[in-house]
Amino acid sequence: MDVLTVTLNPALDRELIVENLEVDRLHRVKNPKYSVMQPGGKGVNVSIILSGLQVPSLAIGFIGGFIGTVVEERLREVSPLISTSFVHVEEETRENITIVDPINDTMTEINSVGPSITEEDLEMFMRRFRIGLKRSRIVVISGSAPPGVPDDFYATLSEEARAEGKVVIVEAVGPLFEKAVESGAVSIAKPDLRGAQELFGQELVELEDYQGAAEEIVSRGSLMAVVSFHIEGDVIATSEGTWLLSTKEQVERSHLLGTGDSLIAGAVHHLLITPDDYFGAAKHAMAAAIAESAYVEKMIITDEDVIRFEDFFTIKKLR
Amino acid sequence: MDVLTVTLNPALDRELIVENLEVDRLHRVKNPKYSVMQPGGKGVNVSIILSGLQVPSLAIGFIGGFIGTVVEERLREVSPLISTSFVHVEEETRENITIVDPINDTMTEINSVGPSITEEDLEMFMRRFRIGLKRSRIVVISGSAPPGVPDDFYATLSEEARAEGKVVIVEAVGPLFEKAVESGAVSIAKPDLRGAQELFGQELVELEDYQGAAEEIVSRGSLMAVVSFHIEGDVIATSEGTWLLSTKEQVERSHLLGTGDSLIAGAVHHLLITPDDYFGAAKHAMAAAIAESAYVEKMIITDEDVIRFEDFFTIKKLR
Repeated sequence: MDVLTVTLNPALDRELIVENLEVDRLHRVKNPKYSVMQPGGKGVNVSIILSGLQVPSLAIGFIGGFIGTVVEERLREVSPLISTSFVHVEEETRENITIVDPINDTMTEINSVGPSITEEDLEMFMRRFRIGLKRSRIVVISGSAPPGVPDDFYATLSEEARAEGKVVIVEAVGPLFEKAVESGAVSIAKPDLRGAQELFGQELVELEDYQGAAEEIVSRGSLMAVVSFHIEGDVIATSEGTWLLSTKEQVERSHLLGTGDSLIAGAVHHLLITPDDYFGAAKHAMAAAIAESAYVEKMIITDEDVIRFEDFFTIKKLR
Repeated sequence: MDVLTVTLNPALDRELIVENLEVDRLHRVKNPKYSVMQPGGKGVNVSIILSGLQVPSLAIGFIGGFIGTVVEERLREVSPLISTSFVHVEEETRENITIVDPINDTMTEINSVGPSITEEDLEMFMRRFRIGLKRSRIVVISGSAPPGVPDDFYATLSEEARAEGKVVIVEAVGPLFEKAVESGAVSIAKPDLRGAQELFGQELVELEDYQGAAEEIVSRGSLMAVVSFHIEGDVIATSEGTWLLSTKEQVERSHLLGTGDSLIAGAVHHLLITPDDYFGAAKHAMAAAIAESAYVEKMIITDEDVIRFEDFFTIKKLR
């Protein structure tokens, strides 16, 4: 196993394509292809995209109830390159709903909270995490945590992984993310800004705010920060400088589904082949995200897709 | 078994309470109670509400895939008064999503199409329908049909049920509903106007249009028509006259969930005790719908709830 992905709060991802979505109306989705369900949660998505890039991974975290069983069975069906070792809990795994409107180019998302996690569940998880760690070179810790998981949990996981000499990639939001960054054990840190454009208590508005956030992450101990800047760019910061990577073509908002997770998978893919080339990983990650954005649905992109989009963005040095 | 409910296209009903729902935004549902899943589909809902009124029923129809299994298992958990005998099909049962916004008083619904039904599935269903029919006094045929079900299928079911001397209640929309009405075998016909205010090719705008639609249904052979008039009223027509039943208090739009199915369950409940008293059934039905509308969520109302709301509406003779 090359990669360990941690998804504490997986989901059954339900993607609906609804033309002309309007609040307070009944919509009928007539085409069965316009209502798709698949295993989800950010770490699980990374495992799925990695399988398309021929990278094997072990997915761990918590799943629960009827819906959790659906998630795990569907995940195993995706690819033999994905192994799972989830801790089963009693309450239902959540369902995340994304409504894509290709006519008005909107994406409306409703994410739920997930099952309650007990002390015992956490201990069981730690045992599986340590076993997974021994068999991996890169650990991806991504997404939100369900109730019962302490704020410093990603920091704890990052520290254990770093102590074992692993590359640690964290994408999250709020205290869970900030404490992980502050542990100094994260290799690549990417704040999940989809909900609120805010980091370390600062609102992000102008490009310089995003640049400042990326540099702040590096100054707090991460090797590289990746901060999405609106739809078409990513601010990348390392100890050597800060850059803005921008797509050359306009990206449709309704095509954003899965691009953040493709970005992480692209970086992982590059670092497995070329360890320590973080800036190269950032460029490969950007190409993977753009490749993903070529599709309305969340798709499993191939290595060829990623190569095809390697020239589809510009790089501007900010510092 | 007193009642047979037919739901050709059941669903996993997912109700989300989202404050300030806006298109093109990411919403996080923080309270687990604000994301509820339960077995759904209009006939299934009637079975659930009947169980709260202590009326046993047999629910039949088609269910499929992982989600179908969740629906059937959850339905059996609701009450021992509900028996099931669904035909299992290969494709996934759909999920119907309702997003209730109690702040802006809106209800946004997304219904999907459901699994494809083959000739063989239909034959298997007919066998179960005939067995169920023998054990029931009232048959409720309610909701949409999945792909592969012919337009005259509700007409066929209604004719078979009427030939056995059963009371037949149909709630549906489009050709499926209109052909059932035209068979002359339906006892109570209720068009499902949630999607479009239209019947027999006529748009319904003014009260007199709704009255006309109700009278048209009766003239085409139904004993009673129940046509919802906006939020707070129902037009009832029989061969003896036409009436408008209106709630005395304002009903919140976000509380409408399940009121149509409660209305049907209320009518069934009354007809089991007082056969042939259709106008009495209409009044009891209205009380049940108002009782349901007292709740934001889809609730299982009790007989006491229904009795409590018996005086909460006015009756005006239109003809």
